[in-house]
Amino acid sequence: MDKGPKVAIVMGSDSDLPIVSKTMKILKEFNVDFEARVISAHRTPDRASNFAKEAEEAGFDVIIAAAGKAAHLPGVLAAYTTLPVIGIPIKSSALDGMDALLSIVQMPSGIPVATVGIDGAENAGLLAVEMLSIKYENLRQALKLRREVMAQEVIKKDENLKVEEF
Amino acid sequence: MDKGPKVAIVMGSDSDLPIVSKTMKILKEFNVDFEARVISAHRTPDRASNFAKEAEEAGFDVIIAAAGKAAHLPGVLAAYTTLPVIGIPIKSSALDGMDALLSIVQMPSGIPVATVGIDGAENAGLLAVEMLSIKYENLRQALKLRREVMAQEVIKKDENLKVEEF
Amino acid sequence: MDKGPKVAIVMGSDSDLPIVSKTMKILKEFNVDFEARVISAHRTPDRASNFAKEAEEAGFDVIIAAAGKAAHLPGVLAAYTTLPVIGIPIKSSALDGMDALLSIVQMPSGIPVATVGIDGAENAGLLAVEMLSIKYENLRQALKLRREVMAQEVIKKDENLKVEEF
Amino acid sequence: MDKGPKVAIVMGSDSDLPIVSKTMKILKEFNVDFEARVISAHRTPDRASNFAKEAEEAGFDVIIAAAGKAAHLPGVLAAYTTLPVIGIPIKSSALDGMDALLSIVQMPSGIPVATVGIDGAENAGLLAVEMLSIKYENLRQALKLRREVMAQEVIKKDENLKVEEF
Amino acid sequence: MDKGPKVAIVMGSDSDLPIVSKTMKILKEFNVDFEARVISAHRTPDRASNFAKEAEEAGFDVIIAAAGKAAHLPGVLAAYTTLPVIGIPIKSSALDGMDALLSIVQMPSGIPVATVGIDGAENAGLLAVEMLSIKYENLRQALKLRREVMAQEVIKKDENLKVEEF
Amino acid sequence: MDKGPKVAIVMGSDSDLPIVSKTMKILKEFNVDFEARVISAHRTPDRASNFAKEAEEAGFDVIIAAAGKAAHLPGVLAAYTTLPVIGIPIKSSALDGMDALLSIVQMPSGIPVATVGIDGAENAGLLAVEMLSIKYENLRQALKLRREVMAQEVIKKDENLKVEEF
Amino acid sequence: MDKGPKVAIVMGSDSDLPIVSKTMKILKEFNVDFEARVISAHRTPDRASNFAKEAEEAGFDVIIAAAGKAAHLPGVLAAYTTLPVIGIPIKSSALDGMDALLSIVQMPSGIPVATVGIDGAENAGLLAVEMLSIKYENLRQALKLRREVMAQEVIKKDENLKVEEF
Amino acid sequence: MDKGPKVAIVMGSDSDLPIVSKTMKILKEFNVDFEARVISAHRTPDRASNFAKEAEEAGFDVIIAAAGKAAHLPGVLAAYTTLPVIGIPIKSSALDGMDALLSIVQMPSGIPVATVGIDGAENAGLLAVEMLSIKYENLRQALKLRREVMAQEVIKKDENLKVEEF
Repeated sequence: MDKGPKVAIVMGSDSDLPIVSKTMKILKEFNVDFEARVISAHRTPDRASNFAKEAEEAGFDVIIAAAGKAAHLPGVLAAYTTLPVIGIPIKSSALDGMDALLSIVQMPSGIPVATVGIDGAENAGLLAVEMLSIKYENLRQALKLRREVMAQEVIKKDENLKVEEF
Repeated sequence: MDKGPKVAIVMGSDSDLPIVSKTMKILKEFNVDFEARVISAHRTPDRASNFAKEAEEAGFDVIIAAAGKAAHLPGVLAAYTTLPVIGIPIKSSALDGMDALLSIVQMPSGIPVATVGIDGAENAGLLAVEMLSIKYENLRQALKLRREVMAQEVIKKDENLKVEEF
Repeated sequence: MDKGPKVAIVMGSDSDLPIVSKTMKILKEFNVDFEARVISAHRTPDRASNFAKEAEEAGFDVIIAAAGKAAHLPGVLAAYTTLPVIGIPIKSSALDGMDALLSIVQMPSGIPVATVGIDGAENAGLLAVEMLSIKYENLRQALKLRREVMAQEVIKKDENLKVEEF
Repeated sequence: MDKGPKVAIVMGSDSDLPIVSKTMKILKEFNVDFEARVISAHRTPDRASNFAKEAEEAGFDVIIAAAGKAAHLPGVLAAYTTLPVIGIPIKSSALDGMDALLSIVQMPSGIPVATVGIDGAENAGLLAVEMLSIKYENLRQALKLRREVMAQEVIKKDENLKVEEF
Repeated sequence: MDKGPKVAIVMGSDSDLPIVSKTMKILKEFNVDFEARVISAHRTPDRASNFAKEAEEAGFDVIIAAAGKAAHLPGVLAAYTTLPVIGIPIKSSALDGMDALLSIVQMPSGIPVATVGIDGAENAGLLAVEMLSIKYENLRQALKLRREVMAQEVIKKDENLKVEEF
Repeated sequence: MDKGPKVAIVMGSDSDLPIVSKTMKILKEFNVDFEARVISAHRTPDRASNFAKEAEEAGFDVIIAAAGKAAHLPGVLAAYTTLPVIGIPIKSSALDGMDALLSIVQMPSGIPVATVGIDGAENAGLLAVEMLSIKYENLRQALKLRREVMAQEVIKKDENLKVEEF
Repeated sequence: MDKGPKVAIVMGSDSDLPIVSKTMKILKEFNVDFEARVISAHRTPDRASNFAKEAEEAGFDVIIAAAGKAAHLPGVLAAYTTLPVIGIPIKSSALDGMDALLSIVQMPSGIPVATVGIDGAENAGLLAVEMLSIKYENLRQALKLRREVMAQEVIKKDENLKVEEF
Repeated sequence: MDKGPKVAIVMGSDSDLPIVSKTMKILKEFNVDFEARVISAHRTPDRASNFAKEAEEAGFDVIIAAAGKAAHLPGVLAAYTTLPVIGIPIKSSALDGMDALLSIVQMPSGIPVATVGIDGAENAGLLAVEMLSIKYENLRQALKLRREVMAQEVIKKDENLKVEEF
């Protein structure tokens, strides 16, 4: 029997939780099983490497990793697994998140990280679902439905705007 | 009968070919079927939207899109499909590719693009294979093998370096 | 009988309204007819392309489009019309609007977007009026008058400053 | 009798000519009359202000101004005229043209400059034609035709690419 | 009889006053006569050029000009006078004042502007006094005295810090 | 008897000479006496501080200092003298000279450095002459003459451009 | 008898104290003797050079220096001593601390500064202890212990997160 | 008997060798024993972690690590050891080395990396020697001697410059 889709969400610090919780919200919306972890690439490096090494065995299909500043976590996890790793650059107090973005996206040849925008936790969740939908047809349908709902929301705002007085 | 994995590679201009050919090389290495296209989001917008709308039906599992400057192509394709879209920011004459990177990675909530590094065409191919390996087990094995080969190359360089005279 | 001048104002999200309303204020000041819309290049791409394709037929002379982050909206609209498109980069939470500026201004050869400064909604309105004044002489006169009023305001501040005690 | 459309092209230095000649090429392609000038906002400021003050009277409909580094020329011209001014940031030896881009696009409220991309001389010409086409219907048709030709070129490249061996 | 030293302080907008008032405070501290003006390079360009043309005749020795965003004012004034012009880049809402800094400091060869740091109004005043002290010996003595006082303040803070408990 | 005007030119490394020689050329053009030195703020810090401490006594009116990367030289000299110090940021291999620009221009309150553009050696010389002209009337006249010549050169290029065939 | 380890902490302004106090807290935690000073490279340059010249004699093993904007202090101290100098770039009101970072890290060949992240005062203290542990074995043990404690804190957060309801 | 000082030099790729060889040259100059390695944080992550874990036991006092792009190597090594780690950001084809700089210097609290300038391999070697001189007195003397030689070289260039004709 096939296991269902499963996603790991790893954040470098629990201070990333307000952003990363948006990823969780997306996965719940799609009924995708996930496990959320606080693992630091720098403070708990062995836990990070072990987690990544065992992630496939543990049934994960995709890993989402969020980190700020010199954000090594996504790349470090990616070095230990061939599961697709999605990186979320977290904006911290200085440099507007540009440091995290470059630390995540500019990976050397051989070890990719699928990078989303700064604080792009919602998109990280959706990207994971899109990846999973390669295998799980029902997720693809759910994605299409969500797009439709999202479009309707914009259309409603458009219609409300048109009748408004400025 | 299941179709095999299939990837679309779309570039905004044929001047991107020297970079994007590295993506093709990766896909060939993994025996992943692909189709390469030149479609401009700005000069042939209807072809771009039609391509994306029909990509799933056409049997594609993943779309890889490369573009420079105000690099809208990956985001435009992503708007018309729920297939995962991988974006390659191409470095052009000015701004070192930073314009393309930001134009691709900073997508608004709802429509993700999996962004790789500037001129990161090789990683785009590998990321596509990682995504496909969610479904296709044999690709996962091939990825692991490639990691091993890659590691051996580094180890060989390390060993050669150690005996060298500086 | 000639139709009068008419401007389309399109914003990618209704969260852009506090900025974009300054554009509307300018057009009202010049008695230029306009229609304001919420259309997302990514969430409602077909509405975006249809709007742009039909804009000329609908009597619009100029399109003003505002968007933040990976701001594709102005370029996407420009791809579907030969009407002049004015792009307003919207500052959002990260990167100070630099992402939107580069995503709008760095368009590839062939499809221009007339870009104003970050959050430059007032100037977008004035630029539209300047473009319209190529055809509509009375707008040119109104622009000159406004310049004069604007100069007088600066002169008044200058005079008040000179007599002030610091 | 109506005069035809006429564009002024002003460059801050004759070293900008290799870039700016692309603007001229576009205007010739559309049979739009133009006059090209070398006027420095800093070295010949009175000529710059006089040129801008008299530009409308001299029959110009649009001004295109190119400058590098602290690129004040487009803004200085715009201060003296209500004709639409298009600014081309020129890339010079340092800072990749970012200095010129910000000096041109970040105009204060009240005096807009329609900014194109760094070294975007071709787009400056096309934007001028788009502005002129508000009044001159035949230019609109020519623009549409050019778009069609441009699309065909991309399509041809696409078709050639598809049959190529990689 | 020799006139005494005299400085012009020009700001592009009265919103710059909270910053620029620090310049005035410095000049008062040194008993240097000054005149403060609100003149916009873009909204009142003729006043700007006339002011600069007549500044020498009006007895000014140095001009200090403050502006934000595409900060052309210092360069525009410098184009019309050979008096030394000091430029103060004002930080505004976007881009942290980097736009103003580059617009002021990156002047083309031939027309220098002596640029101080972002919001560096105090240093602009001190730089003006240093320039004036080339001619006016007593200002040099006052500058030295101020340096001594400034040093003593740091020394006092140093001594207080050393006895403090952390 | 009054000594004539005298300028010190200090460069952090003799590799800066190709740029800094443009400053010397300007000072020769104006017959301003100068002394050129190679003094490193970091490698010969005592020579740097001694030079600055004794610069006034040695008859210098203005100091021009050029440096690249973490360009401390202008600020270090300014710390030891109340003579006006002009800083030239030198572009070196990385970061396009932005590091040198920020290291020079962003001086803390109390110790100004008059900063010119990246590699702006010619403007540094002209700025020095402008400062000197506060005291030396004949230099003011020479500056005006130079402006006139410079304007004529632009005008000649303008006239030649107008008759050219593009 | 061997003196114990001793660290100098120098800040350019007492406004840096809220950040720099984190360095002190670390040194106290490791029972490393330190002296904290306010010395400005620009306002009290002789005190800065004297302090650095005498630092070795005074028994210091490492110098930590914090400064903002054009942050010359670490480099200036490093020029006068061969003790290792650690630089802390302080974020100030403009440019997010990027100016301080580049002013500290981009030192010319010959005079290194060990740079930590923007506002990285805690890491500066830890880096000093790591340097000292080359000589002082007991500090190495304390560092290992601290790493262990730090890891346990992350692990505890990880465990708490796993049982939480999102 | 005490072992002598020993430094590890680790580079992420052998393409970094032309830069990193400057570090080796410095260490040879000071007769400091070193071992040079090619270890990739991403391609050979286990070798990286093992190397760092065993570095202290292997007799190393300091680790120098060089890497480009998303340069995780220095931080990854630092996570596994309490030896001081010096990071060298390597400039690669895009972004001028800014990506490597931020990826190295912006380390989170708890795990410092002593960062030198972009391509600052010589300074990395000197910084290592400075750290070692905390324990090894003779290195301190050698450092002082080198400073003196370096100063004499600058002085010689200064003297040669003064007699030159410009």
